[in-house]
Amino acid sequence: MDEYAPTERTRVRRKPGRGSYDRELVHAILDEALICHVGFVADGHPYVIPTIHARDGETIYLHGSPASRTLGTLADGTACCLTATLIDEIVLARSARNHSLNYRSAMVLGTAKEIADPAEKELALRTVVEHMVPGRAAAVRGPSEKDLETTKVLSMKIEEASAKARTGPAADKAGDLELPNWAGVLPLSLTAGDPVPAPDLARDIAAPDHLADWSRP
Amino acid sequence: MDEYAPTERTRVRRKPGRGSYDRELVHAILDEALICHVGFVADGHPYVIPTIHARDGETIYLHGSPASRTLGTLADGTACCLTATLIDEIVLARSARNHSLNYRSAMVLGTAKEIADPAEKELALRTVVEHMVPGRAAAVRGPSEKDLETTKVLSMKIEEASAKARTGPAADKAGDLELPNWAGVLPLSLTAGDPVPAPDLARDIAAPDHLADWSRP
Repeated sequence: MDEYAPTERTRVRRKPGRGSYDRELVHAILDEALICHVGFVADGHPYVIPTIHARDGETIYLHGSPASRTLGTLADGTACCLTATLIDEIVLARSARNHSLNYRSAMVLGTAKEIADPAEKELALRTVVEHMVPGRAAAVRGPSEKDLETTKVLSMKIEEASAKARTGPAADKAGDLELPNWAGVLPLSLTAGDPVPAPDLARDIAAPDHLADWSRP
Repeated sequence: MDEYAPTERTRVRRKPGRGSYDRELVHAILDEALICHVGFVADGHPYVIPTIHARDGETIYLHGSPASRTLGTLADGTACCLTATLIDEIVLARSARNHSLNYRSAMVLGTAKEIADPAEKELALRTVVEHMVPGRAAAVRGPSEKDLETTKVLSMKIEEASAKARTGPAADKAGDLELPNWAGVLPLSLTAGDPVPAPDLARDIAAPDHLADWSRP
């Protein structure tokens, strides 16, 4: 099994049975999660900011406005923690205490750097669009030179990473098993409704198949 | 409008039109989000950890094992940032560059403290169960004295907070409006499937209405 080397910072301490350093699992969670939360320290205080990410191999791309404080701070080489979480099921127990969530999360520690090369920036932006909606990048106008100039793109290598997951039913205590309360799981998923055309869209442009087919990988 | 006072740390800098300090909006986002991501610094490095939260008035409750490193660090009075994010729509533009997400996020800065009082711990755990599944707390065995002893509960006052949201269609450039590409939004929601009974559940216990009716507030 191909794994990231656990470090003092990524070693899963609580319930180590739920922890993993499996490369494919970390990748799969990052790919399925539409957004991640990025943590960093500014003026001595931690901040946690939601952002769209996308992965290509062992590289995570983040992007935004050149004026973004978050991207500016990260581009300065500030240590950061990028966490992506998927909620799979609500775990319902016979007792309040044993309620839980089945989830998968991936945490990547490291530093990001700004991408200057326009070709890599273009690849990164296409990767982001494909991350959001597979099949979309080929169906839209790609980034122009000006688009690239007015977009800041960061890359972060996945070198120090771990995953954590809970699966299965509630862990009710033996003494609670005879209670008449329902126990089990409620599966949750992020689902798409019908596409809503922009107010200024020409009426003869139909919604493309990549929207009807949308689901997370 | 009842608002949190913006501070240097919560003032929304980028796209201030997307920012808000409205108390009701911050509460609504915290209540709808099933989980949040908590950021803190340990040994000089930021960490971002997903966790279930629940709100009662201006108090946010977090809970977990007494052995949790995250809860232990937070209970020590370490500065923390709690961020909850809801993804509403994928924003599809005619150009790659103008793709975005419509979202709502709330960020709360402050410190947490451990709750020692068993009555407040019990209230907190019931609030957490109700946060996950409205109507559930009255349908399960409440926390016993031992449950309370083996659960660590933290509270965090909402004093420094902001919300940020994007709504509406893509902001395509004038020159892109004549492109034949579809533009609009793809609505997303967290939806529940059919409840799955625990393997050891008696067959005559039917799934309760609070599961069939489950949706986020």
